[in-house]
Amino acid sequence: MRRNERKVDELRLVTIETNYLIHPEGSVLISIGQTKVICTASVEERVPPFMRGEGKGWVNAEYSMLPRATEKRTIRESSKGKVTGRTMEIQRLISRSLRAVVDLTALGERTIWIDCDVIQADGGTRTASITGAFIAMTIAIDKISKEKKLPRFPVNDFLSAISVGIDREKTAILDLSYDEDSTARVDMNVVMTGSGEFVEVQGTGEEATFTMSELQQLLSVAEKGNRELMKFQKEALGEIAGKIGGS
Amino acid sequence: MRRNERKVDELRLVTIETNYLIHPEGSVLISIGQTKVICTASVEERVPPFMRGEGKGWVNAEYSMLPRATEKRTIRESSKGKVTGRTMEIQRLISRSLRAVVDLTALGERTIWIDCDVIQADGGTRTASITGAFIAMTIAIDKISKEKKLPRFPVNDFLSAISVGIDREKTAILDLSYDEDSTARVDMNVVMTGSGEFVEVQGTGEEATFTMSELQQLLSVAEKGNRELMKFQKEALGEIAGKIGGS
Amino acid sequence: MRRNERKVDELRLVTIETNYLIHPEGSVLISIGQTKVICTASVEERVPPFMRGEGKGWVNAEYSMLPRATEKRTIRESSKGKVTGRTMEIQRLISRSLRAVVDLTALGERTIWIDCDVIQADGGTRTASITGAFIAMTIAIDKISKEKKLPRFPVNDFLSAISVGIDREKTAILDLSYDEDSTARVDMNVVMTGSGEFVEVQGTGEEATFTMSELQQLLSVAEKGNRELMKFQKEALGEIAGKIGGS
Amino acid sequence: MRRNERKVDELRLVTIETNYLIHPEGSVLISIGQTKVICTASVEERVPPFMRGEGKGWVNAEYSMLPRATEKRTIRESSKGKVTGRTMEIQRLISRSLRAVVDLTALGERTIWIDCDVIQADGGTRTASITGAFIAMTIAIDKISKEKKLPRFPVNDFLSAISVGIDREKTAILDLSYDEDSTARVDMNVVMTGSGEFVEVQGTGEEATFTMSELQQLLSVAEKGNRELMKFQKEALGEIAGKIGGS
Amino acid sequence: MRRNERKVDELRLVTIETNYLIHPEGSVLISIGQTKVICTASVEERVPPFMRGEGKGWVNAEYSMLPRATEKRTIRESSKGKVTGRTMEIQRLISRSLRAVVDLTALGERTIWIDCDVIQADGGTRTASITGAFIAMTIAIDKISKEKKLPRFPVNDFLSAISVGIDREKTAILDLSYDEDSTARVDMNVVMTGSGEFVEVQGTGEEATFTMSELQQLLSVAEKGNRELMKFQKEALGEIAGKIGGS
Amino acid sequence: MRRNERKVDELRLVTIETNYLIHPEGSVLISIGQTKVICTASVEERVPPFMRGEGKGWVNAEYSMLPRATEKRTIRESSKGKVTGRTMEIQRLISRSLRAVVDLTALGERTIWIDCDVIQADGGTRTASITGAFIAMTIAIDKISKEKKLPRFPVNDFLSAISVGIDREKTAILDLSYDEDSTARVDMNVVMTGSGEFVEVQGTGEEATFTMSELQQLLSVAEKGNRELMKFQKEALGEIAGKIGGS
Repeated sequence: MRRNERKVDELRLVTIETNYLIHPEGSVLISIGQTKVICTASVEERVPPFMRGEGKGWVNAEYSMLPRATEKRTIRESSKGKVTGRTMEIQRLISRSLRAVVDLTALGERTIWIDCDVIQADGGTRTASITGAFIAMTIAIDKISKEKKLPRFPVNDFLSAISVGIDREKTAILDLSYDEDSTARVDMNVVMTGSGEFVEVQGTGEEATFTMSELQQLLSVAEKGNRELMKFQKEALGEIAGKIGGS
Repeated sequence: MRRNERKVDELRLVTIETNYLIHPEGSVLISIGQTKVICTASVEERVPPFMRGEGKGWVNAEYSMLPRATEKRTIRESSKGKVTGRTMEIQRLISRSLRAVVDLTALGERTIWIDCDVIQADGGTRTASITGAFIAMTIAIDKISKEKKLPRFPVNDFLSAISVGIDREKTAILDLSYDEDSTARVDMNVVMTGSGEFVEVQGTGEEATFTMSELQQLLSVAEKGNRELMKFQKEALGEIAGKIGGS
Repeated sequence: MRRNERKVDELRLVTIETNYLIHPEGSVLISIGQTKVICTASVEERVPPFMRGEGKGWVNAEYSMLPRATEKRTIRESSKGKVTGRTMEIQRLISRSLRAVVDLTALGERTIWIDCDVIQADGGTRTASITGAFIAMTIAIDKISKEKKLPRFPVNDFLSAISVGIDREKTAILDLSYDEDSTARVDMNVVMTGSGEFVEVQGTGEEATFTMSELQQLLSVAEKGNRELMKFQKEALGEIAGKIGGS
Repeated sequence: MRRNERKVDELRLVTIETNYLIHPEGSVLISIGQTKVICTASVEERVPPFMRGEGKGWVNAEYSMLPRATEKRTIRESSKGKVTGRTMEIQRLISRSLRAVVDLTALGERTIWIDCDVIQADGGTRTASITGAFIAMTIAIDKISKEKKLPRFPVNDFLSAISVGIDREKTAILDLSYDEDSTARVDMNVVMTGSGEFVEVQGTGEEATFTMSELQQLLSVAEKGNRELMKFQKEALGEIAGKIGGS
Repeated sequence: MRRNERKVDELRLVTIETNYLIHPEGSVLISIGQTKVICTASVEERVPPFMRGEGKGWVNAEYSMLPRATEKRTIRESSKGKVTGRTMEIQRLISRSLRAVVDLTALGERTIWIDCDVIQADGGTRTASITGAFIAMTIAIDKISKEKKLPRFPVNDFLSAISVGIDREKTAILDLSYDEDSTARVDMNVVMTGSGEFVEVQGTGEEATFTMSELQQLLSVAEKGNRELMKFQKEALGEIAGKIGGS
Repeated sequence: MRRNERKVDELRLVTIETNYLIHPEGSVLISIGQTKVICTASVEERVPPFMRGEGKGWVNAEYSMLPRATEKRTIRESSKGKVTGRTMEIQRLISRSLRAVVDLTALGERTIWIDCDVIQADGGTRTASITGAFIAMTIAIDKISKEKKLPRFPVNDFLSAISVGIDREKTAILDLSYDEDSTARVDMNVVMTGSGEFVEVQGTGEEATFTMSELQQLLSVAEKGNRELMKFQKEALGEIAGKIGGS
């Protein structure tokens, strides 16, 4: 049995506070268990140089943790003067995932900057970031769609992400806390859409391997988790939710 | 008259939430008007190389802003690969100020790391950081004093900071919001102790100058502001407040 | 039909030249189609600071491309003064994958440094790197096992990797060339062991999504590819191959 | 009594050599006691990107010390690959101070680059830099005013700076040498104009605090020092001095 | 007697494989003894900013070693985040040398990027780089001359380089291996043209000095070596060789 | 005829001011024509890690130019965050040259840090640096030899350096000013000892080549220049000069 009598396929407590900050076009404070992330979406009326003139938009994410989001203080990346490999990998994952459900042509030649800042970490910070960032991004895009004439609402589908793993007893578990993640044999992040398709599947044997059957259990548990997360997203977005995927 | 009918020598709304995070030894979410800063204090059981073996402790602060704490998104210092001059200046100010009220010998050979992360900025982020960091630091030091045998409680006095300025009408005003700060002729940060002494006085004519008489008005308003801030600190610290300056 | 009449589940031409260089303990020039990678393994008789004294070994990989390995010249990372996110992601993938089949305790307190330098790129450079690096590493470990008294041969199983994808016609294809990779809707890298288990599964919808059924086709094709690659590895390793997984 | 029988409110020996170098538009070697700084002013016929098209000029200062300007050799910032917080703080102070007495509109869209390179350090290097840089800048501006048609001479007033402090006997002293600075309880830098107004007041308790009465003594001594420094500036500038503040 | 019965003025085995890679406009794998360098030439249809609009071309070289090109693994410059002084010195030498035989005006406003990547090092890597880069560059320029209308073939003369040294017995020796280089008293790199003139002469006493007579022996041996290297270049270039120096 | 009626083999005016600064163990302000360099020597009682425990000393030089030493202001290397290739090349040259005349074993396990800071540049800054640094280093070593018991005076011979070139009229000229250097076809720096031997010979055709006969003229003129420079060194060193090369 897991901490707090949680079942193997049960999410931790999820809370989402939208419009958490006054400046960004979209912002969210998402908590999944003790993991807390501030996700903001900022609109910039231009795209990176390599995309100029194509009439398409762009979505780019950055990720960071406060030094004391973790149990032991970690050195700031600004003090080290460079971004770690882990951070870059996560930033690329968030960016790619969000772009999979955005109609970049309908968005028009502008960039949505996503910032995911982990205030407190207890496992699953990258998946919480994706789940929260989707909401912040959609709120910001809704603001654009009200001010500018867009051909259609440029968010095609819901998007959320969750971590799953195989524990030492070879059981597939959903939404790993930091302690569970540290001891899991296999660790997988699954990003999915509202229509139940995959956007990213990243499974890693931590000095271990996994079978096809284990892989299928992991995906099944992940699908359940993502389905539930999207309910929270729908609720948080209110009437904006109805615009997603519309033509 | 100022925004929200605020008087020239009136603070904005101050709220302080202690133990805001689960991991740090001390943590605070301080809000002064729309300015919000997470201040954490982390204890490390060693000091920087240049101080080893002297039996004294150290206090060191870092400061950062979330990219979208500001009205326009600012690029992360980790992405730029370097810390700006402004950030360094603020970090040095916070560190020096806190050390002025800490008995480093009584603290023993350990470092208190202070992290001030601005979640939302509306003027006065460096002074809010000092005021909040003092609380986080004192909570962390209280934890040390309960676990280790210290000769005395190593915090000598209260410490807070406030910004003051001379506006376009040549009036001294207390606790400037971002708008007020942008148009002020003179801008001053004043760090004070509970006994009413100065720790830091940094006054700057923004492409302007100021007279001795203006300087005195600024200091007088700042003293009132700091006196009020320390009442909030006392309340937030509860019974720990009674240990400060004790022998 | 693919370039050169290749079938959807057919590998490109694979050649492996072992002991390609005179200095490294293990080295390989691997070609998969037009993709060519020099993989070397270097033995260092110590481990990183965070592992000292645990009696365990470590495997760490670095990856780079010559500036003109690609169709257009890319700027050197040393000139830019930083390693890109893509490179870091690949380095972490290679390192983790290799560690999954190494018995770090049997290896003893030493590090195997893996260097994968892409001489010519035509798709699949990261998977060719893993496949080649496994051989270079095993040769280097064999050298150690002859000079030092190891409790057992510290390589537990074969390890190879291959890229698979879903093309525009929704067909699963094996071993994508650069052209195929650029147009594929879904792109997946699959790292497997000799016993047919997964080590890493990284599937990405490129601004697209994929279904469970597509995922299964991808994994099936990948398994066929990896099975064939391991035959090439066995041949290249000669008698050393027989030591792998031995007790 | 201080070294060399100096009185508490007495400056050290001041010498100023104008046009010290052949290339810069303005240059000065200033010595205050053993502290020696080469100050140069360079004219660039454009302004930083954020100011273009506004028709206004800019003044920007950089500060550095030769590695062996100090008693012990310090590592070059170019070798470390970054500028320290102390240097950035000083550069910002010099830049802001000079801009306070320059009519940027009258200067026109060009930048005056100030370089202060400390050849030998014995306390007060930042204030000597400001005092010397004012002269170099005024000489360079005079050159511009002869070659270009400026609406008026763009220097509004004299500007100098001096350090003051409170020593262990609680006495306010003027123009601290390095030894005095190291032992002072309070350390203050005061930048003033020819009309006796303040531009910057930066007072710091070095792990100590100071009272309002001490602050007033410090400012009074600083005013005397700055008044005397401006006599040296006037003499060094010769006939150019007469143009300052003219309409 | 030297290793492999080599005479004092005898080159090691030289092999040159042209068009070694598929992507670059010119490419060569050159081996001189155990030293192996991949040299590529890439054409960019523009010049650096400081040369724009002058109608002249540019040649710029970069040099690097694979981490395990050397007997002990060396850390990648990309990991260190900076290029070493040795690398910069070599890059500047290769660039300058090649430019000495190129008619930059005839080349037109384009850049030839030269990349010399040392696959295996056994002394003389910088001179092998120059000798190989000349061939790769000439092949690339030949490609340009076929596609664009150039006023003349822009390579004026052959160019090669060799290392020479004075050993412990005060004998001048040609083409030093790494072992010989480590023990030589004097070490000299000589870059020459087909007409027998010098382009660069860089002689260094390694914590030693050398006389005028020794200098003359070194130059004489170097001339013989370069004469022979150019025969290999001529053969490798085939019919392109005939275009060099033509009007 | 050259500027100021200077003959082809005539040095510019040379002045040397020893003990120019109060802090360094050795210091010199050397002027050769309008080129002015501050050279200092600092003693550190340890050697770099790679030399520890060998009982030998080390000499290491750094070189820099003030931003406005040149006709146009150059950006500081500390601002750029990296040292240029030119600076590294010069630093390596100065270091190697000085080490050629120092008995590192007699020096004992300590480092002499040489800093050459160009205050004003008009050609020949690297050779002036070597010539001046030799004096500063010898003064510092003399100080060591008085305080510590050294087996012998560790400077074996005099050392100076001069630039020579071939001008557009194919004449060999001595000690090139910046103007002359910019137009010279060939540029050579020659470092020599008091006994007339070479330490470094670095000749470069600037997009040009040179013959053996030209090389010999250059070396002959350089020898004359160095002989004269050493007379200035001897005079500047006074009685210390007599200790050089002594047993």
